[in-house]
Amino acid sequence: MGSNGQTGAGSGAHRVVIIGAGFGGLFAARRLKGELVTVTVIDRTTHHLFAPLLYQVATGILSEGEIAPPTRDVLRHQSNATVLLGEVTDVDLDAHTVTSRAGTRELTTPYDSLIVAAGAETSYFGHDEIARHAPSLKDIDDALEVRGRIFGAFEMAELDEDPTARGLWMTFVVVGAGATGVELAGQIAELSRNTLKSNFRRIDPANARIVLIDSGPRILGQFHERLAHRAAERLRRLGVEIELGIRVAAIDEGGVDLIAADGTASRIKARTKVWAAGVQASPLAAVLADASGVALGHGGRLPVNADCSVPGHPEVFVVGDMMELDGLGGVAEVALQSGRHAARQIVRRLGGEVVPEPFHYRDLGSLASISKSFAVAELGPMRMAGRSAWLLWLFVHLASLTGFKNRITTVFHWALSFLGHGRAERTITLRQVLARQLPASAEAEPRS
Amino acid sequence: MGSNGQTGAGSGAHRVVIIGAGFGGLFAARRLKGELVTVTVIDRTTHHLFAPLLYQVATGILSEGEIAPPTRDVLRHQSNATVLLGEVTDVDLDAHTVTSRAGTRELTTPYDSLIVAAGAETSYFGHDEIARHAPSLKDIDDALEVRGRIFGAFEMAELDEDPTARGLWMTFVVVGAGATGVELAGQIAELSRNTLKSNFRRIDPANARIVLIDSGPRILGQFHERLAHRAAERLRRLGVEIELGIRVAAIDEGGVDLIAADGTASRIKARTKVWAAGVQASPLAAVLADASGVALGHGGRLPVNADCSVPGHPEVFVVGDMMELDGLGGVAEVALQSGRHAARQIVRRLGGEVVPEPFHYRDLGSLASISKSFAVAELGPMRMAGRSAWLLWLFVHLASLTGFKNRITTVFHWALSFLGHGRAERTITLRQVLARQLPASAEAEPRS
Repeated sequence: MGSNGQTGAGSGAHRVVIIGAGFGGLFAARRLKGELVTVTVIDRTTHHLFAPLLYQVATGILSEGEIAPPTRDVLRHQSNATVLLGEVTDVDLDAHTVTSRAGTRELTTPYDSLIVAAGAETSYFGHDEIARHAPSLKDIDDALEVRGRIFGAFEMAELDEDPTARGLWMTFVVVGAGATGVELAGQIAELSRNTLKSNFRRIDPANARIVLIDSGPRILGQFHERLAHRAAERLRRLGVEIELGIRVAAIDEGGVDLIAADGTASRIKARTKVWAAGVQASPLAAVLADASGVALGHGGRLPVNADCSVPGHPEVFVVGDMMELDGLGGVAEVALQSGRHAARQIVRRLGGEVVPEPFHYRDLGSLASISKSFAVAELGPMRMAGRSAWLLWLFVHLASLTGFKNRITTVFHWALSFLGHGRAERTITLRQVLARQLPASAEAEPRS
Repeated sequence: MGSNGQTGAGSGAHRVVIIGAGFGGLFAARRLKGELVTVTVIDRTTHHLFAPLLYQVATGILSEGEIAPPTRDVLRHQSNATVLLGEVTDVDLDAHTVTSRAGTRELTTPYDSLIVAAGAETSYFGHDEIARHAPSLKDIDDALEVRGRIFGAFEMAELDEDPTARGLWMTFVVVGAGATGVELAGQIAELSRNTLKSNFRRIDPANARIVLIDSGPRILGQFHERLAHRAAERLRRLGVEIELGIRVAAIDEGGVDLIAADGTASRIKARTKVWAAGVQASPLAAVLADASGVALGHGGRLPVNADCSVPGHPEVFVVGDMMELDGLGGVAEVALQSGRHAARQIVRRLGGEVVPEPFHYRDLGSLASISKSFAVAELGPMRMAGRSAWLLWLFVHLASLTGFKNRITTVFHWALSFLGHGRAERTITLRQVLARQLPASAEAEPRS
């Protein structure tokens, strides 16, 4: 068969192909358990990712295994589901096939129904060159890279006796004050103030400067203003500086260039920068737009029908961060519910129902953990900030983690971190030590 | 101060510098807790490594954090100890200084007493080009690389419908049947037969072929023949093929070329190879040999005096895998005891004792875990194989793990793995997916 293969069920069962194993794809697949269909999940990684906790991997609280269980292990008891590794390169809406690639192994998978749940990726707003100076926090690779950079920066600061150079290592800039940016900045502050206490002899890690930047007028834009205010207060008390209404002009090895709304330019000197500012839909949205004649929407998303199907293609659904529908945001719960909804439409149609149901998002609320024992929560008209919101955050996240295996150690790691300031997953690889130091030093700014 | 710094205690306290944070270095540092000395530990990684369990990270049982706690966190309550990141590039025995480098930051650290515990590295016996085809298992980077290769191979096999190509992905060769090779081969067998059950739809992972190769006449050379025989029996029952008295001639992308004692050549076609065959002392042994006029011994080790000091340099000790003394082997317990011994000699000398004590190794025995509920143990004249040896193995390793944080989750991960076949740390990074597939495919052998 050479390097080209065709896959599909031997039987005549209805073939559902799902692209992506995130919240949208995984919950669509699960919804099809026990149904008379074959399900093929294609993803470019081998794991389902609990993305909302990536910042905890980046700050040494959780291991990568705890938030990234193998998709095939999650679906092992679902006998109608096959999981295949592969980056989807094309979708042929006429031939009803998906083309994917893993190495030189190119696979063509035919479908009767298709659910596209390939999610979103980081957007540097056209300035991809800053990625190497300011990694984002969208996948496990990112989280491990950021972990190496954060803990590595303190190691380098301990070595450097020059105050300017030390200051560069001890400054952390987080760009973007949505939930990810806020949670990351809060955790960098926690670890510098608490976890690293008595770990160093020459520096005081509590002197680390943590700057959270956003172009908007306030942090946590998706929350009510009052909660955002409480969160900002808490972050400031932890030692996080918050700079609002300010845009990033450039990022390089030694810092971030900023422009305020009134045009004033400034610069923050910092070795460690993380980009939590923008996302755009997977490029597959553009492939589908081309093929279906639908114009791409905001952030590269694909406008879909009320039932999440692609206009003109009732057998193809786009869900989660890739779909444009009712202005729904890119959060896990939207992906999960729309994935389930698409799966349900397929089942209904196979059962003879001809009228599709519109997708109604059930807003379960928003949660963001700011620090140990402090979170903000918005549940419809109810708003909470503080310890009770944090307990709710704990409960909801633990309940949502996929897989029993991860939940047990996660409870322990949280207890360790939240009761005792300890963090068990601080490993920096040798590759990271070498990769981080050399370019950083080679391109260091001349010091006075 | 630019890129050059001198470090050292401001006070007049006796300055002990320790190179390496493995068992030798860490236990030497701990032995000096509360003594009137300053201790500086220099290591090229930021963690102490519990190397005997690397194979469990490579096979998805433990997270890297569980076996690699940050050295500075382990020593946080020892106020006389400073931990510095750096690769030691030179030791000046006359000037009493150690030169280390982290990035372009070069550091010169003066010492009054020096303990060199830089350990050993993998030896490919002059064929370093095979490293990329057969990584070893000496550090965290290796373990994560091997983890990606093992779990990634099953992913690729599931994709490949060509039986020859699939066979290549489903064959695993472990070169070297010492404790590491045996334990790794046993765990690959366990995971293919048990952990991965019902994870795949097109392949049966239990069909994986696992081949353990050694040039010697039997496995586990350091154990009594009877135990080695029991271990080999058990491995075979698990499905591991054992090939003895056979040398590796070459390793490439598609397999391993072998030569038997009688000159017969053969080849095992396999994508995944791991090298657990040889080690050599850190190159620092050669630096010390040059400087002290001592000729290097077997495996690049430095012959030392009975008290572990370097001939002609009573203030310099070489311990662990770097020292040649009484034919002691490269095991954790030798490193740990010799590191402690060197530290004790320094304390005694400061207390006015002029006659050094010879190092007497207290052999606490050898243990190797073959599979779930089966280990071999040798404690002086006592030899055990089976479940009781395995319980002993569990107890000893749990007791020896450094740090409370890691012990709790390790207990859970072991319970999961040994009671339920589950493995919680199977994550493959995207970088690994891409790195593994592309060269593998590009250099694939032509298929018929």
